[in-house]
Amino acid sequence: MSALQLNDIYLARQRIESLVRRTPMEYSASLSQRLGVAVYLKLESQQITGSFKLRGASHAVAQLSAEQKVRGVVAASTGNHGRALAYAASQQGVRVTICLSHLVPANKVQAIRELGAEVCIVGQSQDDAQRQAEQIAIEQGATLLPPFDHPAIIAGQGTLGLEILEQQPDLAQVLVPLSGGGLFAGVALPLKSANPHIVTHGISMQRGAAMHASLAAGHPVEVEELPTLADSLGGGIGLENRYTFNMTRDLCDHLHLLSEASIANAIRHAYREERLVVEGAAAVGIAALLDGLIEPRGPIVVVVSGRNVDIEQHLRVLAGSDA
Amino acid sequence: MSALQLNDIYLARQRIESLVRRTPMEYSASLSQRLGVAVYLKLESQQITGSFKLRGASHAVAQLSAEQKVRGVVAASTGNHGRALAYAASQQGVRVTICLSHLVPANKVQAIRELGAEVCIVGQSQDDAQRQAEQIAIEQGATLLPPFDHPAIIAGQGTLGLEILEQQPDLAQVLVPLSGGGLFAGVALPLKSANPHIVTHGISMQRGAAMHASLAAGHPVEVEELPTLADSLGGGIGLENRYTFNMTRDLCDHLHLLSEASIANAIRHAYREERLVVEGAAAVGIAALLDGLIEPRGPIVVVVSGRNVDIEQHLRVLAGSDA
Repeated sequence: MSALQLNDIYLARQRIESLVRRTPMEYSASLSQRLGVAVYLKLESQQITGSFKLRGASHAVAQLSAEQKVRGVVAASTGNHGRALAYAASQQGVRVTICLSHLVPANKVQAIRELGAEVCIVGQSQDDAQRQAEQIAIEQGATLLPPFDHPAIIAGQGTLGLEILEQQPDLAQVLVPLSGGGLFAGVALPLKSANPHIVTHGISMQRGAAMHASLAAGHPVEVEELPTLADSLGGGIGLENRYTFNMTRDLCDHLHLLSEASIANAIRHAYREERLVVEGAAAVGIAALLDGLIEPRGPIVVVVSGRNVDIEQHLRVLAGSDA
Repeated sequence: MSALQLNDIYLARQRIESLVRRTPMEYSASLSQRLGVAVYLKLESQQITGSFKLRGASHAVAQLSAEQKVRGVVAASTGNHGRALAYAASQQGVRVTICLSHLVPANKVQAIRELGAEVCIVGQSQDDAQRQAEQIAIEQGATLLPPFDHPAIIAGQGTLGLEILEQQPDLAQVLVPLSGGGLFAGVALPLKSANPHIVTHGISMQRGAAMHASLAAGHPVEVEELPTLADSLGGGIGLENRYTFNMTRDLCDHLHLLSEASIANAIRHAYREERLVVEGAAAVGIAALLDGLIEPRGPIVVVVSGRNVDIEQHLRVLAGSDA
């Protein structure tokens, strides 16, 4: 945890203030009624590029040296990090290459291309894409920007935690989608700093929850990457994980794993009750509430992290499918 | 137009600044690509209560005298005004009664009740509901707050125009849903004041466009109220219209009327391409662009005015229906 302090997040915010959107905190009548306590949705699905990843990506690019900016950046990404980095780099005039696995939905690949990035599709897993990105960094002298395990990325995501603190300072619990841990660590650090009694929940899907398996093992482990509605939460945490494993271990009070049926149900709830189109990864907090996994002690803040769902999949889910 | 000046809108903003949300201006890749010029969506669908109406309602309540606040407020509304006024009044501790016609969708009636308003359902038209509201005002001494034809309401909606000016100061054209004209007049006044060359488009549905018929006749006329996907744009402009008829006549460069099929298509486009759930009234600007009614001269700002669609209707439209 010593790699990142609270004031690093304030510094990040100062750097990216003009590049990202301060997203709304919305009272949820439907969820508040169901739980009997106030539930708020932090609508990061309304961030530019459609996910919270813009915060970390913008900050990682902004803090590069002039020479690094000339050489460009490269990343491996399940989609939202790539999309965000493509946008962030092009906004700041920096060349960018994104490496993706064949598991990434077509709509996300196309969106990244349209944002001006060079796209490189390799292998069947996030790890394959990661190796390709490392290769490009060596060959071209580009800076490798990992999706989560990097202090500048975590500090950028942390600006979302600052906004939660400012918009709902009396929160009792926070529900955060948990994958590599960059979002979770960034959000949890300012909240735990402000009040250690705020209860933090990290929420993943049952199908391929790498952080959960790693915390259980006591060290980073690999898990099989499986198709899931929460595809943005897929991928490993990296066997050489340096920051997010420790931070998540220290800052996370409760872990939850969700079925595909629960995630699908939450996507439908968001659409029907909140008029929101969200991706599976963004619906896990709502799913945990609907499944009764969270003690009803409020105010509860749910991080709704992105809207970049494949629209055909979304239509299938609205029609009742779980995949 | 003399009833309202630009600085009235600045005064309104000062009064309601803490009560309403500054909504995002979002670049639309899909519409910009289609038209070949930059198109931005002003996402007022993300306003608290789900529509722009909160601006006018908050301002109308805020500027009441202490005695008027004690006696409460009353309104007739096709839904969004009532919803907004119910919320605005309860936020400011003021009692509120909302009168609705039987044409108003059930989801909107329920939402208004949940916001703490007394609801009164009468007749088959907006005019019937209006008469009932007037009766209640006389009997109870409550202040009648009309949905659009009132300087405080127009000034409140005008704060949306100020935001457009600040977020996209080089806009060439603005597309605004047109019903009673409160939103249109409020948005057009600051934009035309800033640059008379900004081209303003008022957009309605073919089925019951009262302002269009009134402008054609040269004075307010009644039209038959018909079921339409853009139900928030239904209702007359009032035969005794004092403000919005003249302001719309003076500030509107082009009027457009849309078919139900066009509106349905725009609802689908907003969902598929922008991941937005919007009501029919809010989709008319997108519909006008998709129908090729607007000369491609940008930047174009499209006001997306609300998201309070009946979700079963929205699902039918997604499945291909036009009703």
